[in-house]
Amino acid sequence: MKKKKIFEGKVLGLSVYQGEIEGRKVKREMIEHRGAAAILGFDENKKVILVKQHRYPHGYVLEIPAGTLENGEKPIKCAFREFEEETGYKAKKMTPIISYYPSIGYNTEIIHCFVATGVKKNSDLNLDYDEILSVVKVDVKKLLSMIKTGKIQDSKTICAVLTYAAKKKLI
Amino acid sequence: MKKKKIFEGKVLGLSVYQGEIEGRKVKREMIEHRGAAAILGFDENKKVILVKQHRYPHGYVLEIPAGTLENGEKPIKCAFREFEEETGYKAKKMTPIISYYPSIGYNTEIIHCFVATGVKKNSDLNLDYDEILSVVKVDVKKLLSMIKTGKIQDSKTICAVLTYAAKKKLI
Repeated sequence: MKKKKIFEGKVLGLSVYQGEIEGRKVKREMIEHRGAAAILGFDENKKVILVKQHRYPHGYVLEIPAGTLENGEKPIKCAFREFEEETGYKAKKMTPIISYYPSIGYNTEIIHCFVATGVKKNSDLNLDYDEILSVVKVDVKKLLSMIKTGKIQDSKTICAVLTYAAKKKLI
Repeated sequence: MKKKKIFEGKVLGLSVYQGEIEGRKVKREMIEHRGAAAILGFDENKKVILVKQHRYPHGYVLEIPAGTLENGEKPIKCAFREFEEETGYKAKKMTPIISYYPSIGYNTEIIHCFVATGVKKNSDLNLDYDEILSVVKVDVKKLLSMIKTGKIQDSKTICAVLTYAAKKKLI
């Protein structure tokens, strides 16, 4: 496939590919993204540690903590790092729960979801200058109910929480 | 926020926004996408009707049928249309199950998932020239097991199937 680079930014790149697949001429617009790690963690009271983050143009959105991989960074390292930066909580262990492509038709991004265990409050939040968020705690059964009633709009929160609940037979 | 348009393509657009949020100078790279409809439907033998679709650069990927909204098209209309075009099955009814943003940090796309009922084989597949796929049937319990063991990589399949299973207490 012939590649034409359109854009290289801080968060994502964009290229257009042209060529043949199965004998047919095709054109594919492709977002290039390093990938992200997302973390389902529970505090000392067994509540899910979420973030209420400003997402332009939607306003504040409730999500599990997450962040983009740095250059060459392994997903599990990103998970430990972003969890502590965004929530002030430190995990002893990160266990992979599910990895998926949010938009597999046109985006290379993979989101790697982890469950954090041995979680303790360790520090204040350490956010990027343009990262606008606060920590929110929600009981996991309430969070499941919010997902089922359409109150959670974010793919990584839905995928991680429902997969966790399915494996733990919470549903 | 000041908007700079970078790209307008067939599937997506790209703009960069600059301005202030909560008093901080921010820059946001934003993918513009009309949105999509995805369908969880069962055949006469109660098997889930999936598609095995070529997704560059991954190869063939197992997913629920789905498609991008046409200009001005309502999600439910897209669901009926894409379900029949991609599988040859016609549904009597589409019930919304979950809607979500695959990558809410930088992408306007919303994926609207529906459950199809009153499903009957009606026609041959009616694919776009560059759409490369075939129909695959899988038992829903097997599909749940595939999700839990990391064999399903696609967000709409994971979100729709797990939400359905949670509501129907199948897990």
